[in-house]
Amino acid sequence: MDVYQQVKNVKIMDHFWIKYKKIVEEEVIPYQWKALNDELPDAEPSHAIENFRIAAGESTGEYYGTVFQDSDVAKWLETVSYCLRNNPNPELEQKADELIALLARAQADDGYLNTYYMLKEPQNRWTNLRDNHELYCAGHFIEAAVAYFEATGKTLFLNIVEKLVNLIDQTFGREPEKLKGYPGHEEIELALIKLFDVTQNQRYLKLAQYFIEQRGVEPIYFEEERIRRKHIDTAMTWNSDENMNFGLGYEYQQAHKPVREQTEAVGHAVRAMYLYIAMADLAAKTKDHTLKETCERLWEDVTTKKMYITGGIGSAANGEAFTSAYDLPNDSMYCETCASVGLAFWANRMLRLEANRSYADVLERTIYNGTISGMDLTGKRFFYVNPLEINRHQSDRKDQEHIKDERQKWFFCACCPPNLARMIASIEDHIYTYSGESIFTHLYIASEMKTKLKDKPIQIKQQHQYPWQGTIDMIIDVPNPTSFKLGLRIPGWCKNWKLFINQKPYESERLVNGYIIVDRTWQAGDRILLELAMPVEKVRSNPLVAKNQSQIALQRGPIVYCIEEVDNGPNLAALRIPKDSIIETTWEKDVLNGVVTLRTNGYKLQPTKDLYTTTESQKTPQPIKAIPYYAWCNRIKGEMRVWIYEG
Amino acid sequence: MDVYQQVKNVKIMDHFWIKYKKIVEEEVIPYQWKALNDELPDAEPSHAIENFRIAAGESTGEYYGTVFQDSDVAKWLETVSYCLRNNPNPELEQKADELIALLARAQADDGYLNTYYMLKEPQNRWTNLRDNHELYCAGHFIEAAVAYFEATGKTLFLNIVEKLVNLIDQTFGREPEKLKGYPGHEEIELALIKLFDVTQNQRYLKLAQYFIEQRGVEPIYFEEERIRRKHIDTAMTWNSDENMNFGLGYEYQQAHKPVREQTEAVGHAVRAMYLYIAMADLAAKTKDHTLKETCERLWEDVTTKKMYITGGIGSAANGEAFTSAYDLPNDSMYCETCASVGLAFWANRMLRLEANRSYADVLERTIYNGTISGMDLTGKRFFYVNPLEINRHQSDRKDQEHIKDERQKWFFCACCPPNLARMIASIEDHIYTYSGESIFTHLYIASEMKTKLKDKPIQIKQQHQYPWQGTIDMIIDVPNPTSFKLGLRIPGWCKNWKLFINQKPYESERLVNGYIIVDRTWQAGDRILLELAMPVEKVRSNPLVAKNQSQIALQRGPIVYCIEEVDNGPNLAALRIPKDSIIETTWEKDVLNGVVTLRTNGYKLQPTKDLYTTTESQKTPQPIKAIPYYAWCNRIKGEMRVWIYEG
Repeated sequence: MDVYQQVKNVKIMDHFWIKYKKIVEEEVIPYQWKALNDELPDAEPSHAIENFRIAAGESTGEYYGTVFQDSDVAKWLETVSYCLRNNPNPELEQKADELIALLARAQADDGYLNTYYMLKEPQNRWTNLRDNHELYCAGHFIEAAVAYFEATGKTLFLNIVEKLVNLIDQTFGREPEKLKGYPGHEEIELALIKLFDVTQNQRYLKLAQYFIEQRGVEPIYFEEERIRRKHIDTAMTWNSDENMNFGLGYEYQQAHKPVREQTEAVGHAVRAMYLYIAMADLAAKTKDHTLKETCERLWEDVTTKKMYITGGIGSAANGEAFTSAYDLPNDSMYCETCASVGLAFWANRMLRLEANRSYADVLERTIYNGTISGMDLTGKRFFYVNPLEINRHQSDRKDQEHIKDERQKWFFCACCPPNLARMIASIEDHIYTYSGESIFTHLYIASEMKTKLKDKPIQIKQQHQYPWQGTIDMIIDVPNPTSFKLGLRIPGWCKNWKLFINQKPYESERLVNGYIIVDRTWQAGDRILLELAMPVEKVRSNPLVAKNQSQIALQRGPIVYCIEEVDNGPNLAALRIPKDSIIETTWEKDVLNGVVTLRTNGYKLQPTKDLYTTTESQKTPQPIKAIPYYAWCNRIKGEMRVWIYEG
Repeated sequence: MDVYQQVKNVKIMDHFWIKYKKIVEEEVIPYQWKALNDELPDAEPSHAIENFRIAAGESTGEYYGTVFQDSDVAKWLETVSYCLRNNPNPELEQKADELIALLARAQADDGYLNTYYMLKEPQNRWTNLRDNHELYCAGHFIEAAVAYFEATGKTLFLNIVEKLVNLIDQTFGREPEKLKGYPGHEEIELALIKLFDVTQNQRYLKLAQYFIEQRGVEPIYFEEERIRRKHIDTAMTWNSDENMNFGLGYEYQQAHKPVREQTEAVGHAVRAMYLYIAMADLAAKTKDHTLKETCERLWEDVTTKKMYITGGIGSAANGEAFTSAYDLPNDSMYCETCASVGLAFWANRMLRLEANRSYADVLERTIYNGTISGMDLTGKRFFYVNPLEINRHQSDRKDQEHIKDERQKWFFCACCPPNLARMIASIEDHIYTYSGESIFTHLYIASEMKTKLKDKPIQIKQQHQYPWQGTIDMIIDVPNPTSFKLGLRIPGWCKNWKLFINQKPYESERLVNGYIIVDRTWQAGDRILLELAMPVEKVRSNPLVAKNQSQIALQRGPIVYCIEEVDNGPNLAALRIPKDSIIETTWEKDVLNGVVTLRTNGYKLQPTKDLYTTTESQKTPQPIKAIPYYAWCNRIKGEMRVWIYEG
């Protein structure tokens, strides 16, 4: 079993992602900092940093926030770490250092660190793993600490989390004196494997393995814990006993059966993603085939039965959860930003198990569509829920109140904005993997990478106007002629491509799992030109998807399009794109920060006098204009549709 | 302003409705009787009659049931009354008499009668009109008492309700010493007008008028009452203060503004129907043009913007309520059986204000489709909610738990089965109206009617195989040649018709509001033959309905069809009916108690390997069979669709 490494030294030069990274650095991080410090006049207070001050004995007052408020601090530190990798910023680093020092002062002597329990129920540590996110928050601290160490070389944060992990390791495990628990919201598992990566401490890997493998083992720990909880004085949680886990059973936490027996993605979509990431990571570390196969099976289930064309997942608001195969309603789903971010991260992990474009295609689908749709183009407003349809009734339907037709400022439950921010800040980590004598290019993002294959230094520079243009220019830099295989992904959406090496057509051999493998001795200055034909495609759903019948989505390259009321008038459902229509593309540099828009000559069905009639509606010609889905709701609020009726 | 009277002496001979009437008499009434007496071993206890025994001091124990449990007893008595009109049944009448005697013994000395308050909160009468249904239950008692009086001539029940109404009249009104309240669930208004009809006591009409006109007047009574309730000890209700009226405001009870200012149907659909019925009745009695116009405006709103093709209403489960115009989702609506029954009754009342087929068309649509779908063909199982689509995901979606894919036995909240039963038991009341020298035939239901126009006796006999055949045979019987106008409705669904009188073609003049008016001197034995062409029609929705795009519904005569999985296999959404398809009809006497089924040669889109693809799905020929919607879910449970994709 081959395992691939992530190329870590990559600097983004990409016009598309640079804009987003700049927004994260200049808008989101400062805005979040203010939020964490309760300095935003017109947003809900966060209290996240104040909670740590109180825990450290440096302030007074009560705990405030969700039970996972600490994780907002962790995600901010993680995002800051990624920004510091390529852009030194002493002022920001100092803020981070001071915050980390506060965490150190707040940490209990035995290593415990969770402000909710420290301030509200100090006697009740580890009594409600099902609902109360202690291990989840610990996981985010670990991820942040690893990122901060990698970015700065500083070890204080790493020390804090290692002390915390030691306590967790003493508390949980199969030994008789330990609790046989595991988190109600997965996260620490993947974080522990990251911690193992930087420390090579096998205990962290073993602890991750324990958490993953104990999950779903009968008797279900959450059930035992629930009964024990009857004898202690503890606060009510969000999870009501009358409708535990939103009626979804332990599927909600993916704890209904041992992980290797799981064949379908179930329950809370973000939880599921974080578990599957950790399973893929563990499979890579342990070379465990059965775990790898489980990941492949779950991947197949999610991406061929339960994923929106935008990379959104979670078809139901109840439990923010997966439902059944092909149940993909466009106006009542959840499609949480965090869940798509999780799917991108999972795809990245699957690429470390196998260089296969089925993973990279989904990675690309999520990062260009259903993740960044969660943020407006200024980085100031956010969606939790990313619908594929806003119709004129949306705001009248109480059963769809979770679907907003305008992005909001800061959330009380502020999981999505920082999650998206850390994805953008680390987008470079998704481009390349390598193994032995091979380097694979999974994403076309203009950048400069440096790595070594068997101690031989290799640099690759990508230059292009992706995702708007399909001409990819790559330059290899090696000090001496160097033999290695370069895998170039031919995206699943691309039907015609041409490859030139030093201006000579490269004999296109068969694709290996969707990649052209160029095996040669590379010289400094070797130039690769990959031309990916990028026409507008009319995409159809599997007819098993009841809600997308007779409808098409427009896609060009990796970008999924939508139509908005501001361009097309109201009642978008009554628009028709003829089967033989030609879709024209226009680069509009002043629209939505610069996008390729689509235009076609369509029709609109005219309203009839009667509600039901045997005569066909009159069709009047109407131009139809589509914009990238990720950029919807950046102008005037109104209707929106991804799936458009054909005919 | 002309007003029409209902022809009361009509005896049903109709093969279609006789079956339903027989089910009501032989199954539903005895079954309900057992339910009311808690004699059903496998259904939830009703306790409804036991509550009265306890109130009468003849039994001990606690009140049990919903706050409107009394109304189940009333609806049973009302249905029994209609059955007794044409089919004497001494045993049944004795049961009714005994039950009425129990009501008399349970009634308080001052006339009060409501077992919930008598047994649970005797000190709190009339303190929660918003939620607790005292006036609603009183209304159902009044309706039952009027029906029982008309069927049997017995006055005890009438005396009971008049005593109750006197108390209500002393309690509510604009006078300073009275409460300025009105019911949270309308019903008593229409009942009081029925009571006025049989007693000619103007006080009842005035009281109805007060309740109707006080509704929605500022300050909103429910708001004042809510504040007063803070000072008394009273039980929690179904209506939580955190989410009062399911977040719908006083629109929920149609109490958001005075009725004459209401332009759109809002709130709980059954409540709305009962109010609109009473408004139409009051307009007829008072010849109040503004109220009539209000009714017409609301009718237009409901039937051209908010009504399903089945006659279902109430697009949202939240509040069982109307939403906005053209919001007609097929798999997440409410479409309560009671609401469609109410719509039928309202149509009947509008026909008394004007003979206009737009009312009769809706009346016919509801009685043949969205009402009787609420009961299985044996009268033993019932739907509250009547969806137009059951897809393969229905049972997995917690947000659609209100939609069942199997009818249930008895309900804890048992409003729908008895409501449907009383509609069926009195279906003859909907056929004819008359005024001055005109008689109008609104429905084609085989029957014998007897009436008088200006003291001249007239009998009309209808014979036919409607709704399966469109040839209507009518015979006039008059003792002497008699001049009168006979209005024959040409249904809105019918595009071609021929009329013969005594075998001679009748020169078809222009229709008057959808009726042929035959003005002649009729002789005994005059024979009318009306041939209504009844081809299968492909019906389309107004394109403003987002959810029915590219789909057709099949309708033949008044019958709306659906397709079921048992006939067509799974994934009904992937079926296609070609634009030029010919639909064939078959009379199948052994299928579903005898129905005309439809067949056509269609296609099915085959599943694809990928979830999203740029190639068109393969179409394979597949015969498609449709059955009447009302008869769905009488074989094997599975998918169902009314709207079928075309193409």
